[in-house]
Amino acid sequence: MITVYGMHASGNCYKVRLLLEMLGRHYEWVEVDVLGGATRTDEFLARNPLGKVPVIELSDGRCLPESNAILCFLAEGSHLWSVEAFDRAQALRWMFFEQYSHEPYIAVARFIKRFLPAGHARTAELPQLHARGMMALSVMERHLAAQDFFCREFGVADIALYAYTHRADEGGFDLGPYPAIRSWLARVEDQPGYVEQQT
Amino acid sequence: MITVYGMHASGNCYKVRLLLEMLGRHYEWVEVDVLGGATRTDEFLARNPLGKVPVIELSDGRCLPESNAILCFLAEGSHLWSVEAFDRAQALRWMFFEQYSHEPYIAVARFIKRFLPAGHARTAELPQLHARGMMALSVMERHLAAQDFFCREFGVADIALYAYTHRADEGGFDLGPYPAIRSWLARVEDQPGYVEQQT
Repeated sequence: MITVYGMHASGNCYKVRLLLEMLGRHYEWVEVDVLGGATRTDEFLARNPLGKVPVIELSDGRCLPESNAILCFLAEGSHLWSVEAFDRAQALRWMFFEQYSHEPYIAVARFIKRFLPAGHARTAELPQLHARGMMALSVMERHLAAQDFFCREFGVADIALYAYTHRADEGGFDLGPYPAIRSWLARVEDQPGYVEQQT
Repeated sequence: MITVYGMHASGNCYKVRLLLEMLGRHYEWVEVDVLGGATRTDEFLARNPLGKVPVIELSDGRCLPESNAILCFLAEGSHLWSVEAFDRAQALRWMFFEQYSHEPYIAVARFIKRFLPAGHARTAELPQLHARGMMALSVMERHLAAQDFFCREFGVADIALYAYTHRADEGGFDLGPYPAIRSWLARVEDQPGYVEQQT
């Protein structure tokens, strides 16, 4: 049995839940009160010294943080994680793109607009976040204009990029000019086991 | 034969060279004039639509960007990339940490201090970069106080984290208060095939 420590409103945590549902795996979800400081306790920091969700805990007590590392681990042996080295590397390439060039702009803009009070000092970051986020969306759009999924078949890279892209509007991004991305979002939502993000 | 498109002054590119040297692999290095705009040509953007180095090109023309994805691909089948799923996941966990919580602060501070003219507007970013970078170094210090390498054995995660940590001083970080990190740097430098970063 896998235990997931997560927060439903977090896209990084939703990635893990979406994969587990698509794989039909049993798991226990522990909702963590991040904003209330629950990731700063000694008990939590022993699971992840960065004090962030998601973290998974295996039945033997071993823990693993970092959403995209969790996806690779949980998908091992399934149809969502290729056995071919170059295909795996391409999936990793898109997952590193997600964490370096996408999430820091698209997820952070969503955090500022959705979770901080209107007029918060961090709203000053939004113009730059939008500019950088649109660069990431443009790269995705060009790639998806030529193929159905990020790699040859649907898999972990799509799940990683779906999480914050499908909620990009909450950060002030308009997906209207990105038809290939919108078609891809619909293809992800057609996958067996797909579940919506809660909250 | 592998072709590496890189820039010697870049830590992300050095990761790839260091791994190839440690593996004793033959490769061709193509030095790319990034600051001169060579990553913005159509020819280069066909290799990596993000216009960034490093990128590797295989003999059949397939290309792979993202330094840490390249490490995983090149290390496949070697002693530097475990065959055990949980060990691989832990290595990935540290590589995602490197790209999300380490490189954006420690490498960017180095870029500003080393490559931009003194008094450049971006020097205003340095206090925040130093604060966040020291958080990453603290997490590394605590981890390395208890074990020799990031995973059970020396491997790709160590190479990924070594690249910018060993040059952190160029970004204004003092590694004096991090003895476990300094010991680990020396252990990395003792590995067979180790080569220094050029420039």
